[in-house]
Amino acid sequence: MIVNMRYGATDQEIDHVIERVRELGYQPHVIRGAERTIIGVVGKSQAHRSELEALRAAPGVEDMIPIAQPFKLVSLELRRERTVVNVGGVLIGGDELVVIAGPCSVESREQILETARALKAAGAHMLRGGAYKPRTSPYEFQGLGLEALQILREARQETGLPIVTEIMSTEEVDVVSEHADMLQVGARNMQNYPLLRRLAATPRPILLKRGPSATIKEWLLAAEYLLAGGNPNVVLCERGIKTFETETRNTLDLAGVALAKELSHLPVIVDPSHATGRRSLVPATARAAVAVGADGLMVEVHPCPERALSDGPQSLDFRGFEEMMRGIKEPLRRAAAATAR
Amino acid sequence: MIVNMRYGATDQEIDHVIERVRELGYQPHVIRGAERTIIGVVGKSQAHRSELEALRAAPGVEDMIPIAQPFKLVSLELRRERTVVNVGGVLIGGDELVVIAGPCSVESREQILETARALKAAGAHMLRGGAYKPRTSPYEFQGLGLEALQILREARQETGLPIVTEIMSTEEVDVVSEHADMLQVGARNMQNYPLLRRLAATPRPILLKRGPSATIKEWLLAAEYLLAGGNPNVVLCERGIKTFETETRNTLDLAGVALAKELSHLPVIVDPSHATGRRSLVPATARAAVAVGADGLMVEVHPCPERALSDGPQSLDFRGFEEMMRGIKEPLRRAAAATAR
Amino acid sequence: MIVNMRYGATDQEIDHVIERVRELGYQPHVIRGAERTIIGVVGKSQAHRSELEALRAAPGVEDMIPIAQPFKLVSLELRRERTVVNVGGVLIGGDELVVIAGPCSVESREQILETARALKAAGAHMLRGGAYKPRTSPYEFQGLGLEALQILREARQETGLPIVTEIMSTEEVDVVSEHADMLQVGARNMQNYPLLRRLAATPRPILLKRGPSATIKEWLLAAEYLLAGGNPNVVLCERGIKTFETETRNTLDLAGVALAKELSHLPVIVDPSHATGRRSLVPATARAAVAVGADGLMVEVHPCPERALSDGPQSLDFRGFEEMMRGIKEPLRRAAAATAR
Amino acid sequence: MIVNMRYGATDQEIDHVIERVRELGYQPHVIRGAERTIIGVVGKSQAHRSELEALRAAPGVEDMIPIAQPFKLVSLELRRERTVVNVGGVLIGGDELVVIAGPCSVESREQILETARALKAAGAHMLRGGAYKPRTSPYEFQGLGLEALQILREARQETGLPIVTEIMSTEEVDVVSEHADMLQVGARNMQNYPLLRRLAATPRPILLKRGPSATIKEWLLAAEYLLAGGNPNVVLCERGIKTFETETRNTLDLAGVALAKELSHLPVIVDPSHATGRRSLVPATARAAVAVGADGLMVEVHPCPERALSDGPQSLDFRGFEEMMRGIKEPLRRAAAATAR
Repeated sequence: MIVNMRYGATDQEIDHVIERVRELGYQPHVIRGAERTIIGVVGKSQAHRSELEALRAAPGVEDMIPIAQPFKLVSLELRRERTVVNVGGVLIGGDELVVIAGPCSVESREQILETARALKAAGAHMLRGGAYKPRTSPYEFQGLGLEALQILREARQETGLPIVTEIMSTEEVDVVSEHADMLQVGARNMQNYPLLRRLAATPRPILLKRGPSATIKEWLLAAEYLLAGGNPNVVLCERGIKTFETETRNTLDLAGVALAKELSHLPVIVDPSHATGRRSLVPATARAAVAVGADGLMVEVHPCPERALSDGPQSLDFRGFEEMMRGIKEPLRRAAAATAR
Repeated sequence: MIVNMRYGATDQEIDHVIERVRELGYQPHVIRGAERTIIGVVGKSQAHRSELEALRAAPGVEDMIPIAQPFKLVSLELRRERTVVNVGGVLIGGDELVVIAGPCSVESREQILETARALKAAGAHMLRGGAYKPRTSPYEFQGLGLEALQILREARQETGLPIVTEIMSTEEVDVVSEHADMLQVGARNMQNYPLLRRLAATPRPILLKRGPSATIKEWLLAAEYLLAGGNPNVVLCERGIKTFETETRNTLDLAGVALAKELSHLPVIVDPSHATGRRSLVPATARAAVAVGADGLMVEVHPCPERALSDGPQSLDFRGFEEMMRGIKEPLRRAAAATAR
Repeated sequence: MIVNMRYGATDQEIDHVIERVRELGYQPHVIRGAERTIIGVVGKSQAHRSELEALRAAPGVEDMIPIAQPFKLVSLELRRERTVVNVGGVLIGGDELVVIAGPCSVESREQILETARALKAAGAHMLRGGAYKPRTSPYEFQGLGLEALQILREARQETGLPIVTEIMSTEEVDVVSEHADMLQVGARNMQNYPLLRRLAATPRPILLKRGPSATIKEWLLAAEYLLAGGNPNVVLCERGIKTFETETRNTLDLAGVALAKELSHLPVIVDPSHATGRRSLVPATARAAVAVGADGLMVEVHPCPERALSDGPQSLDFRGFEEMMRGIKEPLRRAAAATAR
Repeated sequence: MIVNMRYGATDQEIDHVIERVRELGYQPHVIRGAERTIIGVVGKSQAHRSELEALRAAPGVEDMIPIAQPFKLVSLELRRERTVVNVGGVLIGGDELVVIAGPCSVESREQILETARALKAAGAHMLRGGAYKPRTSPYEFQGLGLEALQILREARQETGLPIVTEIMSTEEVDVVSEHADMLQVGARNMQNYPLLRRLAATPRPILLKRGPSATIKEWLLAAEYLLAGGNPNVVLCERGIKTFETETRNTLDLAGVALAKELSHLPVIVDPSHATGRRSLVPATARAAVAVGADGLMVEVHPCPERALSDGPQSLDFRGFEEMMRGIKEPLRRAAAATAR
C-alpha cells in the first residue's frame, strides 16, 4: 500500500500517518519528492488491512494506492497450475473445448428432451436450462421450478449430458444440488454474498457469471469468496458488460477473457448469446471466443426460437447450432493453444 | 408493440407475423412504407406479452418496439397521487425533507449511541447502520449481524430515531424485520428477485437502492416486484451508477432522480456518500439533490472516519454533518417545490 | 511516479529499472515488501517524463503509478486564486450566477432577435446560437455559417448580450473571433488538439465543453492545452457524459462539477439541455447545478421548440425559460456559497 | 418514423400532430390502442426529416421512434456488394487478411527503417507511424510532423509497404496526402465534421477509427459523411470503447465488428493494441479479431518498447510481432469465411 499525501500536507499530518501505520503493525517508508511526500507501507500481516485503508480519511491524505492484487486463492501468481473442473465427467479447463447448450428456460418435457437429443447429436458436452428465472419484470415467465429440475434430470439420464442450471437463492441450494451437476450463479447475483458463501459449502462445481457492471477484479473477488469458503471447483463465464452501446444487449469483453486467464488459474468460458442478444452474431463471436483462448462456450438453443418464453431473439435453432459447431472446430483451438504463453 | 420488419421482408414473412399476432389475441395494423413495413400490435390483454415479444425471433423481423411502459403499479401515469411512506412516524415523500444518517457499519455499541445522539442533535430524522455487510472482498469486515441489530434498537429507544438497515438474504428477513423500522435492499441486490418477492410480503417499508448498472426503467421494475407482491411502501434511493469516470466512486445521476419522480409516484432519496466516495463532495451534492427535488438524503457519518472499518473516506464526521445540515436548509427545498410541475 | 514490479520480478529486472531511472535524471527509492518490490521515483525535472513512463514496457514491471496530477496551470493546488473570465463585461466565476441562453442553431434573423429580446427581459446574461453545427448525420441541418454570425452580432448590438458560438475548425477561428465574444469548443472537439492550440493564441475567452467520454482529468488536460498555449480565459462546461442510461441523452455529472472546482481554479458552468435531452428535466437540473456550486448555466431556448431545426425536444420556450429563471434565484446560490469550503 | 403519443394525450394534441405531419408532406397512419395512440408516418421524401423529428417537442408527444436506419450509402441493405479498398496495391476487404503494423510515433529515421524491414520480413502488408500525434497532455511528445512523413516515404520506397498515418486537421490534408497512401482519422476525431468533409474530397482512401464513445450507428454515420462527400474508399477500424473497466485501456468490441459487417459493406479492421493497452493481450485479441471476421489488423510494433516515446506498454517488439503473425495464420480466416453468411 502506498499513502499519497496531498500537495502541501504538513509535517504533523505526515507524522500522524506514520504513527498510525506503525500502530497497525506495518513498516512505513517515507519518500519526499519535489512536490509531494509518499509513504510506502510494507508488512506481512493482512490482519489490519481495512484499518490501514481507512487512513484514506486521515487529514492530509490524498489517496491510498494498493500494490498487491486483492485476491489470493484465484491468482495465477500464487498458484501456477491451472484448475480443471470435472462436471459429471466433462473436464472444463483441460485440452478440449467444452460446449454447453440449451434453452434459456425449461418450458416443457418435450422441449427439453428434443433439444437434448439434438445437442448431443451436434456435439455438445453439457445441457443448460433455467428452472428458476431472474426476470427484469414481475409480469414475465418466472420458470417451472422443481418440475423443470426433474425434466432436466430425465434429459441427462437419456443423453448422458451433465446439467447446469441457475440458482437464485440460498433456499434453493439443496434441491438444485440434488438434481443438477453444476450450479450457475447468474450475472445479477455475482455479488450476492450470502449465496456465494452458501455455495462455497456445496460439493457441486459452480459456474460464476460476470456481473454486468463488474470489473475483472470484482469478478475474481467473487470467485475468491467461493474458494475461500472451501469450493475450488469454479468456472468463470464472461457474458458481456453494460456499456453505452445498445445495439447489442451487452458488450462482449473478450480481452477481459484473455486477461482473466492471465490473472487467474480458473477456467473461463464465454456466453455469446447473452453477450450479443442477437442470434446472427452468435456464430462469429463464438469463434472469436475460442480463438481468444476460452475454455468453453455456453450457447442458447431452442427448437423454435420465435415461440420461446424467454430470450428467443438470441437463441439458435438446431440447424443454427450445428452450423456454429462446424465453425468452432479444432483449427481455432489449436491456433489459440499454439500462441498462448 | 410495434413490429419493425426488415428491409426486403417477404410477403410470406409479413403474413406469418400477422397470423401469429392474431393467434395470440392481438389486433395487427399494417403500415407499408416506402422501404419497410411495420405492424402496430394493439390489444387489451397482457396474458401473452412474452409470446408476442418472442416474435423478434421470427424470420423477416428486425425489431420489436415496445410502446407502453413496462411497469404499471409504480407509474405516475396510472396513479396520480404521490406515495408517502411512514417509517416509525417519519414521513418520506411528504412536505419535509428526510435525512437518514449513520455509519456504514455498526462497529460497537459506543460508536452507535454516540453517533445517534450527535445526529439527533444535528437534526437527522432516521439512523442507518449496517449489520450484514456486502463486501467486495471476502477478507473485509463482514458486519456484526444480530449484535448490530440489538445495538441499533437500543439507539432507537434512546433517541427515537427510526432504524434502517440492509438485508442481504431471504433468511435474514424475519430477524431484521423484528429489529428495524425499514429494510434496505442494497444496490447489488436490486435484481435479487427471491429477496424482492420475500420483502413484498413483509409489513415493513423498503428502501430500494438503484443497482450500479440499472437503468431508471429496470429500477422501477424492481420496485414493481415489491408493489405487485403486496408491499406499497417503497422508497427509491439513487446512489450513483457505474461509468468510465473513476475519480468518483460512482456517477451520481441527479437527472435520473428528476426522471424517476416524473415517471413514478414513489418517493426518491439520494445517497451522496456512496455516489461520490469522497467526503469533500458530500455537502455540495447533498444540496444539489435537495434542489433537484429529492425527498430525502442518506448520508454516512462516523465519529472518526479514519478509523472506520468501512467507507471511512466517504464518511462525514459529526462536525461535517452539522455543516452539511446547515447547507440544505429550507430555501433549497422551497425553490424545488416552487418550480416543480 | 511509482514503479510497481511484478510478483517474482528478478533482481536483474529491478536493477535494470533502477539504472534506467538514474539515466533519465531521477532518483529511485527502492522498497522491498513481503511479496513485491516497488520503486519510488523522485526528481524535479519533467523533461524525461514520457521516457520514464515507457518503463511500463520493461521486463518485470507490472505498472507505473503516477503520483502528481498531470495538469499544472489549471490546478488549484498550484494557484490558489480562482479565475474570473470577463466576456464582454459579463464576469464568469465571480459572485453572480451567469445564465447563457439561446437556440441550438441560428435559423433566421427574426428567430434570433425575438429570442434575444425575450431572454434579456427574463434576465439572461449572454446569448448562444450555433452558426456551424456538428451533426451526427450528414443529412441534417448544418448551420447558416457566416450569415448566422452576422445575425448574432446584430442581436448583441440591440440587446447588449455578449455572444458565444461554437467553433469547429481552425479555419473558422478568424471569422468567428471577429463576430463573437466567446468561442465554444464543442464536446466532440474537446480533444481536437490542433483546434485547441490555435484557440490558445486568440484573445477571445473559450468555453470548453467536456467530451462525452472524457474523465475530469482529461477535461482539465484539454484546458491545460489552452493555458499552456497562452490563453488563460477558459470556462469549463459540463454537459453530461455517455453511459448505459439512455432515457436521458447523457448523464449529467454534477459531482464532477464539484470535483472540477475542487481541482481547478477555472469557472465551471453546466448545460442541462444537452445533459438531459428532455425539456421537462431542465428546470430541476438547472436548480441542482446552481446548488452544487456551478458558476453559470447554458440553456437552450427556442421560440417554438416543435419547429426547431435541431434539439427542439430539449429546448425551453420563452415561458419555460422565465419559469426556470424564477427557480434558480438567489437562495440556491447563497446556500452553495455558504457551505463551500 | 412512429410518433408515440403520451398516455392521456388529448384529441386536440393528436390532431395537431397529424396536421403537421401532412403539412410536411408525409402520410400519417393512426393506431389507437387500449392505453395510447401511435401515429405511423410514411413518405418517400427525406427533405423534411429534421422538421418531422422536431415534433418530439409538440404537446402530447412522448417519443419519436425512427424505423429506417439513419445511414444510406454505407448500408449493406441498399448495396449488397462488399467494398474492397485498394491502398497502394494492397486490397482491404478482399480475400486476404491485411496486417498493418508499425510504431505509435515516428521517432527517427533509423527506428522506422529498421521497423519497416522487420515487419516486411514477418509478413506485414502496410506500415503505420504517427507524424502528428494527438496527446492527452500538452507536455507529451507531439510528433515530428513533416520530417516524419519524409521518413515514412523513404521506408515505403525501400520496402514497398504502403503507408498510413493519422491526420488531425484540415490544414494537414494536402501535405499528408502527398506522402501517405492512406489517411487515418483518429478515434478522437471521428466526429470532427470539417475534417470529414475535407477528406471526402481527397482521392486517398480513409481509415476511420471508431470514437471511444461512439455507437456502431454513430460510427457508420461518420463514414456516411465520407461517402456522401464523394470518397467511397473507407475502411472502418474498431479500437475499443470507453467503459467502466479500466484494467484494459479500452474495451474491445468484437461483437461490434461482426455487427458493423452485418450492417455495412465497408471493410472493418481491428486495432488490438489501443483496444487493450497491454502487449500481453495483443496476440490473443488479434486471433479473436480474425476469427470474428475482421478484414485486417492494425498493430503497434516498436524496436524497443521500453524506450518508445508513446504507447510502449502496448507495443510488440519484433519477436512478439513474428509470434503474433504465426498465431493468425490461415485456419482462423478460413473458419471465419466458412461460417459467415
